[in-house]
Amino acid sequence: MNPPPEPVSFGASQRLALANSWVGQSVACIDTPALVIDLEAMERNLARMAVFALTHGLKLRPHAKTHKSAELALLQMAQGAVGVCVQKVDEALALAQGGVSNIYITNEVLATVKLARLATAVQTATARFAIAVDSALGIERLAQALQQAQADRLNAIDVFVELDVGQGRCGVTTPSAVVPLVQQIGQHPALRFAGLQAYHGAAQHLRSATERDAALATATARVREAVSHLQSAHIETPLITGAGTGSFVREAGSRLWGELQVGSYLFMDADYAANQTDPNAPTFEHALFVKSQVMSRSSSHAVCDAGHKSHAIDSGLPQVAHPPGLRYANGGDEHGVLHPDTSGELPPELGTTVWLIPGHCDPTVNLHDFYIGVRGGLRRGHVERIIAIDARGALA
Amino acid sequence: MNPPPEPVSFGASQRLALANSWVGQSVACIDTPALVIDLEAMERNLARMAVFALTHGLKLRPHAKTHKSAELALLQMAQGAVGVCVQKVDEALALAQGGVSNIYITNEVLATVKLARLATAVQTATARFAIAVDSALGIERLAQALQQAQADRLNAIDVFVELDVGQGRCGVTTPSAVVPLVQQIGQHPALRFAGLQAYHGAAQHLRSATERDAALATATARVREAVSHLQSAHIETPLITGAGTGSFVREAGSRLWGELQVGSYLFMDADYAANQTDPNAPTFEHALFVKSQVMSRSSSHAVCDAGHKSHAIDSGLPQVAHPPGLRYANGGDEHGVLHPDTSGELPPELGTTVWLIPGHCDPTVNLHDFYIGVRGGLRRGHVERIIAIDARGALA
Repeated sequence: MNPPPEPVSFGASQRLALANSWVGQSVACIDTPALVIDLEAMERNLARMAVFALTHGLKLRPHAKTHKSAELALLQMAQGAVGVCVQKVDEALALAQGGVSNIYITNEVLATVKLARLATAVQTATARFAIAVDSALGIERLAQALQQAQADRLNAIDVFVELDVGQGRCGVTTPSAVVPLVQQIGQHPALRFAGLQAYHGAAQHLRSATERDAALATATARVREAVSHLQSAHIETPLITGAGTGSFVREAGSRLWGELQVGSYLFMDADYAANQTDPNAPTFEHALFVKSQVMSRSSSHAVCDAGHKSHAIDSGLPQVAHPPGLRYANGGDEHGVLHPDTSGELPPELGTTVWLIPGHCDPTVNLHDFYIGVRGGLRRGHVERIIAIDARGALA
Repeated sequence: MNPPPEPVSFGASQRLALANSWVGQSVACIDTPALVIDLEAMERNLARMAVFALTHGLKLRPHAKTHKSAELALLQMAQGAVGVCVQKVDEALALAQGGVSNIYITNEVLATVKLARLATAVQTATARFAIAVDSALGIERLAQALQQAQADRLNAIDVFVELDVGQGRCGVTTPSAVVPLVQQIGQHPALRFAGLQAYHGAAQHLRSATERDAALATATARVREAVSHLQSAHIETPLITGAGTGSFVREAGSRLWGELQVGSYLFMDADYAANQTDPNAPTFEHALFVKSQVMSRSSSHAVCDAGHKSHAIDSGLPQVAHPPGLRYANGGDEHGVLHPDTSGELPPELGTTVWLIPGHCDPTVNLHDFYIGVRGGLRRGHVERIIAIDARGALA
């Protein structure tokens, strides 16, 4: 008689323990669906962007909203990044907890409960924090929160004023409006005016180089105008920061931006890959995949076990990296329907492994608790390590 | 001097601790974005479906892929549900761990590693499990897994054969094909043939009653044909199970289905609410909301802190439940852009609370670790309890 099996217990920590048991084994052992990094492809992406920033004399501050992982942030900083960006206070706290020493929240925060958490971190953590603002109320509340947490020492936090450079989302909408906000920042010794936040999110996904040129020309003109207004008020602008994977070649060539906030280059999703390539841009490879398996099959189609609870579909459905010749159709929350590209071809057999390239990396990562890091290629490699997604679900 | 603040530490467990500190307090204290249940609305939905099933003499087995919560599953069973459905093995294990005693995986499982986990649960857990199959290979592997886990006692697990009734996803595509699969199940004493899985997922979201009538007529014809083939092979069909929130009135009226697998009725998302109402259907209310806050504002629009990392957008963008007169536009992963319905109206002020109705509940729930249960209404109520989303991220 075998010993009786262990009682059932299967939450997030048990899933992590299971994944840890795959370390050192072949990729074949990875249960599906799973979020897998091709480590060599990611490392090449990492190095190419680091070299690009270095050769252009620019600071690199990758956006960690893409990967949400302290380990990957530290890897980026080990290759020369000055720190990372995040979008949310709780992302910043999760990464600080993971040892990341320089974190910029590129987003406005109005809630006093969130600002109190941030101020406590400013007071107690070894990390250096920065934040974006676009309103007098936001600046006032930030200063109050620092004071209440006894964190209002000189230059306790870096503050960037966000200028809307064409996206029509956050940021002051007229370039001259940065001046009173910067002056207000100057009235609080704990707040250090660190520069302008100038990110054109909508420009990232314009397909043609010409469209992106036009969008960035507008952005550049608006930044120049804001800087000029600040100069007229005898205020120097320490830094212009922004740029994304779809546009950074332009910001780098502008002689205006001094820091790049690129995020998706690390993994390259299907959406970014659909952009027309810029001649001066480094080549980035797909490094993030969802491993899936065919679990149902008819004569016309196969069904795999990854739907949009496994990958985000806001920027389109995933592409099938392997096997070749398959098109992924929406099968709902938990399924993908696979059709052969060529009519008459048979769908893949039951149990076939299917590798998907997510349409959009950032929200895909946010669905998973950890990455499975694979070395030696997706088909013949082995699981090298499990990488925590520390800020998954850190929405506030 | 105050004592020095505690060091920063902010992962999922700290976020839960923070949420627990809101219990008993006003809804105003809930940090944003947060997933909030209007408990009274949910309880009314729960009761209305329970009464419907009872008065129609049907079993109710709600689909827990919607809520992923053991606490809510137990609430459904306390009102007469015979058990719950899930889509994934790890969802089943997470709910069994939370005390749910009867769980049906309405989906095909081919991976031996997953079947081994399930078989261990069959052997050790007090819960009763069921699973769907649509292939000879799936049946063979299930039987093997039970044997290897020494769980192959008589009728150890209930097995439903899935028939594709019009969705074109999983299930055997010809009604006669159920016969050999049921015969194969009969060869394994550990497997009990429990009936046919007949769910028309695609019919749920057809807007007009006429379209849904037509889809269900096709489904009904296919089920009748399969039952007739089984009768010819001297096999009785113990149960037809299926139906969703968009179609259950039809399955209930068919005198064929004996069990309803409705899920979304519990929360009612914007997508289901857009369906033309069936005259005989109970009325379900929106009970699930994302609480959000305006954190940036211009003269033309406001920006709130909930984007598609806070709610799924596969079935459309969220609707604004409150304040009135606002339209939500896509602002990316972390933002929503709010435009006044009427031109000339001013956007809401900085700090304004915005209540969103998600486009699609199920994948929205999967983004969050817990619900904030509110009693007394969203605007003047209090936080009654925090409800764990036990199977969040249980993808395998």
